[in-house]
Amino acid sequence: MGKGVLLIISGPSGSGKGTIVERLVSDLGYSISISATTRSPRPNEKDGVHYFFKTKESFEKMIDDEELLEHACFCGNYYGTPKRYVEEQLEAGRNIILEIEVQGALQVKEKYNDAVLIFTMPPTLTELRRRLENRGTEDKETIDKRMKRAEEELEYLPKYDYLVINDTVDEAVKDVDIIVKAERMKCSRNPELKKKFKGDVC
Amino acid sequence: MGKGVLLIISGPSGSGKGTIVERLVSDLGYSISISATTRSPRPNEKDGVHYFFKTKESFEKMIDDEELLEHACFCGNYYGTPKRYVEEQLEAGRNIILEIEVQGALQVKEKYNDAVLIFTMPPTLTELRRRLENRGTEDKETIDKRMKRAEEELEYLPKYDYLVINDTVDEAVKDVDIIVKAERMKCSRNPELKKKFKGDVC
Repeated sequence: MGKGVLLIISGPSGSGKGTIVERLVSDLGYSISISATTRSPRPNEKDGVHYFFKTKESFEKMIDDEELLEHACFCGNYYGTPKRYVEEQLEAGRNIILEIEVQGALQVKEKYNDAVLIFTMPPTLTELRRRLENRGTEDKETIDKRMKRAEEELEYLPKYDYLVINDTVDEAVKDVDIIVKAERMKCSRNPELKKKFKGDVC
Repeated sequence: MGKGVLLIISGPSGSGKGTIVERLVSDLGYSISISATTRSPRPNEKDGVHYFFKTKESFEKMIDDEELLEHACFCGNYYGTPKRYVEEQLEAGRNIILEIEVQGALQVKEKYNDAVLIFTMPPTLTELRRRLENRGTEDKETIDKRMKRAEEELEYLPKYDYLVINDTVDEAVKDVDIIVKAERMKCSRNPELKKKFKGDVC
C-alpha cells in the first residue's frame, strides 16, 4: 500500500480551499492535520479533535525539540503543526492535508521534500473578486485588501507543485485526488519496489 | 489547454505495455510516435502511418541535424524517433506516447526533462513468468532469457518517474491517464500561469 501523501493546500481567501478540504475528508477519507495552539479552547472545542491545546511552556518545548513541522505566532498565541500526528497518519498509509498559507507551506516543504504543494484558484482573478463579493460579508475595502493579498500569494505559484483551478468544487476535489493517486505511483516514493519484485522471484 | 505530455512507456516483454498503449490511443485519443527507419516497407505498411521510411543517407542526415530524439541500429537498419512529429503533437496539446526500451527512454529524458517515464510491470515477477508461459509461443529457454532481461530492466526502475502495476489492463490504462492528468496540472509545465492570472485583472 505504501505511505500516505502529505498534502499542503493553499490559495487566496475566496478560492474555496476550505470546501475542497472538507469534501476530501468527508467523501474520500483523507485525514486532516490537527494544529497545536496555546490559545484557550472555546466551549465546543475538544482537545485532540479541533486542536491540541498546549501551555506556552509545553509549546515552546515542542519548538525546541523540533516536534513541529511549522509554527507561527498570531495575536499573542502560538499555532503550529505537530510532526508526530502527521507522521502517524502517513505511516498508516493515509493521505493527510495541511491547509496552510504560503510561507508555512514552503517551511514544511523544506523539511519534507515529499510533501505535495497544491495551490487553488478560481479560473480568473475577476472570478475571485466576484466570489468574495457574493459572500456579502465584507465591505469593498476588505475585498480590495484580499485581492491585493491574492496577487501577492500568486507570486509563490512557481514554488508550488500543482495548480488546481476551482471552477466547480466537484471537479476540484476530483483533481486533487487525481494528483494524490499519481503521486502514490511515483517511483521516488517507493524506493523498496525493486527489492520487492526481486524478492518475489526467489 | 496547455501543451501535451510526452509519455514514455517501458516495461519487460509480457508486461502488457503494447496493449495499454493501444487502448490509450483507441479509447482516450492519445497520439503515438511514428518511428523513422531505413528498413524496407512491408506490403501492408504505409509511409507516415506505420513508419517514416528513409534512405540511409537521409536518416544519417537526420542524426547529424539532431532531428531525432533517440536512435539505434538493429540488424543493419536504423530506427529512431523524429523530433518534429512529437513536437507538433505536443504543441497541439495532444499527449504523445513513445513505447521504447530503457536505454532509449533515458536518452529522451536527457533531451526533454518534461518527458514522463512510466515503467509497467505485472504485480510480481512470478506473474510475469506466468503470462509469458500462457502465451504458449516461446520455449522455456526463451522465457528464461526474457525473465533475466526483465530483472536487468528493473535495475532502471529508480530512474523512472512512475510505476504502473498492470494487474488488469482497464486499471493500468486508467492509472496512466491519471498520471498524465496530474502532470498537466503541474506548475512547472505552465510557467505562464502567474502572468495569465495577473493579465486578467487589468
